Amino acid sequence: MTAWTDDRGMTMREDGLRGLMQPWSMTVNRFIEHAARWHGDREVVSFRDDGVVERTDYAGIRRDAARLSNALLAHGVAPGDRVATLAMNSGAHLAAWYGIAGIGAVCHTLNPRFSEDQLAWIIDHAGDRMLMADGAFAEMAGQLARRCPSIEKLLLFTPPQGESSGQLVEDFSAGHSDECAWGGFDEELAAGLCYTSGTTGDPKGVLYSHRSNVLHTLFTLQPDALNLSARDVVMPIVPMYHANAWGLAFSAPAVGTRLVMPGSRLDGATLFERMRDEGVTFAAAVPTAWLGLLDYLEAHDERLPALSRVVVGGAAMSEQLLRRLDARGIEAIAAWGMTELSPVGGVSAPLPATAAMTSEERIASRLKQGRVPFGVDMRIVDENGAPLPHDGVAAGALQMRGPAVAAGGSVAKIGGSQR
Amino acid sequence: MTAWTDDRGMTMREDGLRGLMQPWSMTVNRFIEHAARWHGDREVVSFRDDGVVERTDYAGIRRDAARLSNALLAHGVAPGDRVATLAMNSGAHLAAWYGIAGIGAVCHTLNPRFSEDQLAWIIDHAGDRMLMADGAFAEMAGQLARRCPSIEKLLLFTPPQGESSGQLVEDFSAGHSDECAWGGFDEELAAGLCYTSGTTGDPKGVLYSHRSNVLHTLFTLQPDALNLSARDVVMPIVPMYHANAWGLAFSAPAVGTRLVMPGSRLDGATLFERMRDEGVTFAAAVPTAWLGLLDYLEAHDERLPALSRVVVGGAAMSEQLLRRLDARGIEAIAAWGMTELSPVGGVSAPLPATAAMTSEERIASRLKQGRVPFGVDMRIVDENGAPLPHDGVAAGALQMRGPAVAAGGSVAKIGGSQR
Repeated sequence: MTAWTDDRGMTMREDGLRGLMQPWSMTVNRFIEHAARWHGDREVVSFRDDGVVERTDYAGIRRDAARLSNALLAHGVAPGDRVATLAMNSGAHLAAWYGIAGIGAVCHTLNPRFSEDQLAWIIDHAGDRMLMADGAFAEMAGQLARRCPSIEKLLLFTPPQGESSGQLVEDFSAGHSDECAWGGFDEELAAGLCYTSGTTGDPKGVLYSHRSNVLHTLFTLQPDALNLSARDVVMPIVPMYHANAWGLAFSAPAVGTRLVMPGSRLDGATLFERMRDEGVTFAAAVPTAWLGLLDYLEAHDERLPALSRVVVGGAAMSEQLLRRLDARGIEAIAAWGMTELSPVGGVSAPLPATAAMTSEERIASRLKQGRVPFGVDMRIVDENGAPLPHDGVAAGALQMRGPAVAAGGSVAKIGGSQR
Repeated sequence: MTAWTDDRGMTMREDGLRGLMQPWSMTVNRFIEHAARWHGDREVVSFRDDGVVERTDYAGIRRDAARLSNALLAHGVAPGDRVATLAMNSGAHLAAWYGIAGIGAVCHTLNPRFSEDQLAWIIDHAGDRMLMADGAFAEMAGQLARRCPSIEKLLLFTPPQGESSGQLVEDFSAGHSDECAWGGFDEELAAGLCYTSGTTGDPKGVLYSHRSNVLHTLFTLQPDALNLSARDVVMPIVPMYHANAWGLAFSAPAVGTRLVMPGSRLDGATLFERMRDEGVTFAAAVPTAWLGLLDYLEAHDERLPALSRVVVGGAAMSEQLLRRLDARGIEAIAAWGMTELSPVGGVSAPLPATAAMTSEERIASRLKQGRVPFGVDMRIVDENGAPLPHDGVAAGALQMRGPAVAAGGSVAKIGGSQR
């Protein structure tokens, strides 16, 4: 028998010997705190729906988030409460994510492309207490606030286009302290909520934990996944309300990239101008956004020399899209994911064998949706649940596993709220 | 008031709403399991002390580790028991790390450069039950096994040089199953133990947890830290018994790099030959190893075209060393760390501003020991504990914080074992 004690009175436990490392809860506020402290002057640029180009930095985002947290606390928002957003990508939306999650409340991103009926169903299902919307969505947001009894207050990120009962977030936060003691709670608590429309039945909610968001961020920062560095200028074209914006709202501040939020105008000419003017090096979007940009680049014989690599996700990348991006000097990385995976499942980073391939073989290899990064595991099983070989031939049901994978198979079904 | 239930019967807790993501304990066996599953045929090459060049792969390391785990369990090794190693870097040593930690036992790396008296003190202090040593250290290991009553069994990784009572690890593991159910325990349990010699007083033990090792690995994989990819061929010259080998025993399998273990001959000519023959792209070592390699390269006007970047740690990198490496086309990255930090504290990755610097400014910037990656935090405090500005001018005491930082200030002092 062995007993073991140390200066701090530790003893051997039933299940083994406890390590002696510092406690450090994995909560998402760590990302914006790290960015504000070590990359505080790195810019966050937002192309707002009212035409204003807003320039702040990570220190500013942290400050705005802290003020919002304090305003939410003063309003009575408690840990576990759901606060919804209906907004495109912007610095203000980013500050709201951190302001909501930092105090243990849950940031529920609504998809503005859903119908009013769908959104009302989702808000009721989630029991959202507040709704924060872009000015461009003020009318829809007002309708939802009237229809959904759980919504106590409507806030607006930007001035409303038309009449609105909503208060500007800036006014709601005004006068509150720049400092807020974030985190300090269980890392398993929920940080975010996102409903997928699904193909059958009612929308299904995925409830991300602080832990799952922090680990997903670390998994995707790897060089063979999104490969982000402080030297990058990142444009998340994929919206923050869709599939967690590929985690970029966390991974960009985690490494201190410059961040360019494109807002709602995503046509080829606008994307080109903004990417060129802001020196974007990395962007993530669905194939349609890339097709629009390519049409513009080809029609005007333009290039984006700073744009070194782009992630193409949300739908399969066609061979033609890959070749067209290649021809403009843009390296396309195919990625596969889903809301239930936080969302990254696989990334097509080259392997050692890739270097020895012919150019045609390399293109075929890059069209595959890649392999899983550490932290994601997958297998294919037959109808009896027995694992099948992962040889690209065997067909069966896909099973995913990991700390950033929704519990309960691949879909977390959240039941109705009771108020 | 809000109540919240879901299909799985979840209810709102006192402290908030629990996220709905899969449980996934962060235990180090995940690294070798990932490597064996997705990079199983990636080679692990060992230059053994008996002259044998051993070639296996991650599938082989996982298999050897599982056999060893089963042999340890059969011998009665229980969770929390300490198993010591006295060995240079090799695939067998790597398999031992995973075989020991996978069953919840603690891998205690001994430094062969310590005196026999120091090692005996440390073994007694840690209460190690077994000792696994390289054949080259068989005599010292035999002495220690005789002196230290806690040691029940002596195992050898390679045939002994001279007489020894030790059993070969291969023979000890023979006949045991290739499969072992690793992990499944609390991620806060200890995985590794390393004593620093310190500058005053007795050696101090640092007790790494599974969680701290997994998180440290993820922090250091970032592009602005060690930046490892599956396309890398990694040579950890820094020994596994010193400062956790910069975490490379975990980070290399986590991404599936090829791994070249240099063994004990670390002179310039030998390093050159092995790096050239194996196509090493990344290596980590203290400045003296680099000086030896550079002397050889310069005397023979040789280059190592595959070697794209090296980490220089353990002691400050001199300007001359940086310039000499530059002149041979090898990018040197200064890193700062200590055993108590698992060990990476800071890495001198370039910032956006670096691109605009003159070549001389860039060299001055690269000689700094860098900034902290996400997951490590530091501050400088005055004698009253008040934070000072991090401006490169203020001098005070350094405080480190993070989940891979030893608890109890920066040094974990582990008390004597009682048997």
